[in-house]
Amino acid sequence: MSPSPIRILGVDPGLRRTGWGVIVSEGSRLSFVAAGVIKPDDKLDLARRLAALHEALTIVLAEHAPDEAAVEETFVNTNASATLKLGQARGIAMLVPALAGVPVAEYAPNLIKKTVVGAGHAEKRQIQAMIAVLLPKSQVTSPDAADALAIAICHAQHRVSAARLAAPKVPA
Amino acid sequence: MSPSPIRILGVDPGLRRTGWGVIVSEGSRLSFVAAGVIKPDDKLDLARRLAALHEALTIVLAEHAPDEAAVEETFVNTNASATLKLGQARGIAMLVPALAGVPVAEYAPNLIKKTVVGAGHAEKRQIQAMIAVLLPKSQVTSPDAADALAIAICHAQHRVSAARLAAPKVPA
Repeated sequence: MSPSPIRILGVDPGLRRTGWGVIVSEGSRLSFVAAGVIKPDDKLDLARRLAALHEALTIVLAEHAPDEAAVEETFVNTNASATLKLGQARGIAMLVPALAGVPVAEYAPNLIKKTVVGAGHAEKRQIQAMIAVLLPKSQVTSPDAADALAIAICHAQHRVSAARLAAPKVPA
Repeated sequence: MSPSPIRILGVDPGLRRTGWGVIVSEGSRLSFVAAGVIKPDDKLDLARRLAALHEALTIVLAEHAPDEAAVEETFVNTNASATLKLGQARGIAMLVPALAGVPVAEYAPNLIKKTVVGAGHAEKRQIQAMIAVLLPKSQVTSPDAADALAIAICHAQHRVSAARLAAPKVPA
């Protein structure tokens, strides 16, 4: 039985820049669909910036109709204010697919790096280089879009291994 | 010139419990409209909990049609993971009014407490007691709804004082 192709949206959320990337995963084959970066006008107040992010992500969802979405489980340790800002953007990044009925998975940064680069402590430019190898048609120049594609690839790998298990270990 | 009545929505966001309260401010008079607590099912995954919060707040906005909204500038210092969770809920709390074209103000917790109780380090039950005095018809039993009403009252006071100034100090 050949697995049906799955369209996956990866999102790397941030208040200043939110990277997104869509791939198709078909068995062990991955192909690039689209990627980009959303930069809400930083002269807007916070609520309007969140609304701009919501609007742009809603368009991405409508244009690319992903079957599943994945977001990084990042948080900033050093600074509570930065963590709160990231959380706000991340809330929108998870909300928009959920409102469209698309399930949203979360992956730890180390697992994403390990899946794509083979090491849990890869640098941003290593991820970008590996995205160019794994998805040659992507030609992304933005590290945020590359990270979003890495998140989508991580989901492609791990959703397949979960489906292979007779009794997938899913938290209750 | 008598100032026109303004409907204000206050929101105290949280992933487990989001308090909300609507008041009308007319000159120096405040009156209670409605208040409540949104508790998304904690058996849902994060994205679906955010969608449930979004849906419930959207209904509050539609039912009570506030002119302006206010949210506390809280963050948790002790724990990055808790701060990220709060940020996610707060993102939704700011997004929903913004999507309805309602401006959203932010106030520091100390200013809210000082406005309502007269001291910047008031306890939750002091806030609840003062809400019962300031808005006798509210009869809220939930500390989260009381906090949300306190945020709305803080906005009622500070938007008036800002309007009284010839040149209000607004960050660019």
